[in-house]
Amino acid sequence: MLLGPGPSDAHPRVIQAMMSGMIGYLDPDFLLVMDEVCELLRLVFQTEDHLTLVIAGTGSAGMEAGLNSLLEPDDTIIVCSVGFFGERMVEMARRIGANVVPLQADWGAPFPAELLEAELKSHPNVKMVAAVHAETSTGIRQPLEELSRLSKEYDTLFMVDAVTSLGGNEVAVDRLDIDYCYSATQKCLACPPGLSPVALGPRAQDVLLNRQRKPTSWYLDLALLANYWTSERRYHHTAPVSMILALREGLRIALEEGLEARFARHHRNARALWAGLEALGLDIVAPERYRLDQITPMWIPDGIDDMAVRRTLLREHSIEIGGGLGEFAGKVWRIGLMGESSKAENVLALLAALESILPGVGYEVPQGAGVSAASRSLGSVVVN
Amino acid sequence: MLLGPGPSDAHPRVIQAMMSGMIGYLDPDFLLVMDEVCELLRLVFQTEDHLTLVIAGTGSAGMEAGLNSLLEPDDTIIVCSVGFFGERMVEMARRIGANVVPLQADWGAPFPAELLEAELKSHPNVKMVAAVHAETSTGIRQPLEELSRLSKEYDTLFMVDAVTSLGGNEVAVDRLDIDYCYSATQKCLACPPGLSPVALGPRAQDVLLNRQRKPTSWYLDLALLANYWTSERRYHHTAPVSMILALREGLRIALEEGLEARFARHHRNARALWAGLEALGLDIVAPERYRLDQITPMWIPDGIDDMAVRRTLLREHSIEIGGGLGEFAGKVWRIGLMGESSKAENVLALLAALESILPGVGYEVPQGAGVSAASRSLGSVVVN
Repeated sequence: MLLGPGPSDAHPRVIQAMMSGMIGYLDPDFLLVMDEVCELLRLVFQTEDHLTLVIAGTGSAGMEAGLNSLLEPDDTIIVCSVGFFGERMVEMARRIGANVVPLQADWGAPFPAELLEAELKSHPNVKMVAAVHAETSTGIRQPLEELSRLSKEYDTLFMVDAVTSLGGNEVAVDRLDIDYCYSATQKCLACPPGLSPVALGPRAQDVLLNRQRKPTSWYLDLALLANYWTSERRYHHTAPVSMILALREGLRIALEEGLEARFARHHRNARALWAGLEALGLDIVAPERYRLDQITPMWIPDGIDDMAVRRTLLREHSIEIGGGLGEFAGKVWRIGLMGESSKAENVLALLAALESILPGVGYEVPQGAGVSAASRSLGSVVVN
Repeated sequence: MLLGPGPSDAHPRVIQAMMSGMIGYLDPDFLLVMDEVCELLRLVFQTEDHLTLVIAGTGSAGMEAGLNSLLEPDDTIIVCSVGFFGERMVEMARRIGANVVPLQADWGAPFPAELLEAELKSHPNVKMVAAVHAETSTGIRQPLEELSRLSKEYDTLFMVDAVTSLGGNEVAVDRLDIDYCYSATQKCLACPPGLSPVALGPRAQDVLLNRQRKPTSWYLDLALLANYWTSERRYHHTAPVSMILALREGLRIALEEGLEARFARHHRNARALWAGLEALGLDIVAPERYRLDQITPMWIPDGIDDMAVRRTLLREHSIEIGGGLGEFAGKVWRIGLMGESSKAENVLALLAALESILPGVGYEVPQGAGVSAASRSLGSVVVN
């Protein structure tokens, strides 16, 4: 039971899709698969005018493709960072020689738009503003409306990391006017890890066409990837066909469920988890109004051995949860309810397991605690 | 039947390995899988002292990881290029600001070592010499001994592209003193495309540690990847777990067959193909002594429509072969007999199909030509 920050459990139909045997990446039937994946991605990214494609690498490859392809040395980028993955953007952008303005704010709250506005006023010619929609290190859902509005007001590109949000939260690329949005397959899309689906808007495409110098990366050059994934089909790399077949199935499943219904399912199961954790006296990192449904970092109680508990969960209960990242390492556990892993029975099993493992943690009920108490706590939410 | 330049048919056990469901990339059981993959790779790369790891991208990602991690701007690299993928190295190295000496020689013959020696004499402080072991665009097997000797004599790093050779030809990393060798999974290892296994020697590791500046790529930074794949296990990316399970199975199968037996099988089936093509009056690009067993580019006969024949092969015979790349586009077909696709029955089916499709092509036998003629021609080789 994969209840960490990803990979989540893959849908059985997704696994089945990888069984179909190999197919040539230039086979006309596979080219139709690519077209279908692009079309399904436009629906999931909620965009009509963006070019969608799939990068043959993980979510971090999608991050680097955007930075490396859209920025040139000395271009200015403002990174709105409130967690581990914002810091990764800073590191990547520095490596390509960009002028990086890393705006740090408290981990554990969304990035405040006022901070961005002040920086946009003081730096002329900012090329890009970047933010992380769903920070798995903190469990914070970043509101994007104000950041988007400001980036447009100051005529910069707006790049969004939707690695953990796509398929679990609304990622409305057109409405939010996101110029470059990248995600990953192993979180709320319930597919194996290894691919990064991206959406590239018209302004970003213009930037690709008007670069002074080629990007330092050839493998992650979005202009070359766009040629390969659109009608030109100019050979770039050998497409990871099994993974792309898996992704197609994952996207079909998400759309069959319906995006709204899928988001509601993630929210319902998250609320059940929160209610259960609170009933057990455990504290969640993010304030409820900014909480992500798909990943819940919680404070490890005082005196509890991080690794020992996670080992017991894994070995005795077959449940994986995640540890903390960056400044939260050793301080938090991260519970993921993503894609196929977002199920009421998973919430119940985890709460019961935590109650049985953690000393001094439990519901204040006369007897028969354990599963039944967790179950009652959960039931009150699930039934609603 | 995948008889193009890759992907080749995956082994059924490899497909099965992807069915085991998802596993967390930090699960202790998965860390054991990673260790086993490293160990199996050392055996397949025939090395004892190299660090082996798997890059979460295709063979081109392995190429870029080597260039981007081992070269700094203004470092000099000599690329021994006799085909499409040598040219790709040149393009990648230029993008990172290296001083690239692209040595071109005729497509259709190995790169001559004398040419390299002359350049090594005239350029002081060459940092790296790079070559492609098995050029799928030309079907030439590049002898590496002399290139290796020269690179050591002039104290440069020696990088080798073994994308199409690993698992089908001997890739003796220690004996050939290769400092950085990269491959791919979808050729002679009979796994799905999407990963790049690499071997990194002690000299190359020293270079990583002593860089002046970090590589421009974070995703393909071999120093970070080495930290993740060795005992440090410092988080870098979410490992593509399904693909790595598939690769482990593919490596196990290769070693169960035995490397020598596997190379011999590739050679036997290639000789059958060559005999059949020659009996049909069709011409092979590479001279026999430099021919690769796993990929055979052949000249398209005059007046024949490239795409029409390939379409008929695919639609009516379910056989995929490849077209030409670069300057060979439209002029050659490329027939791959790699990994699981290297089978006598595949050779026979292809020869029979070509004979039935190509006008004016056939064996000079009184009657009952077709399959029986191809079969006789093939038999004479297979029986030996």
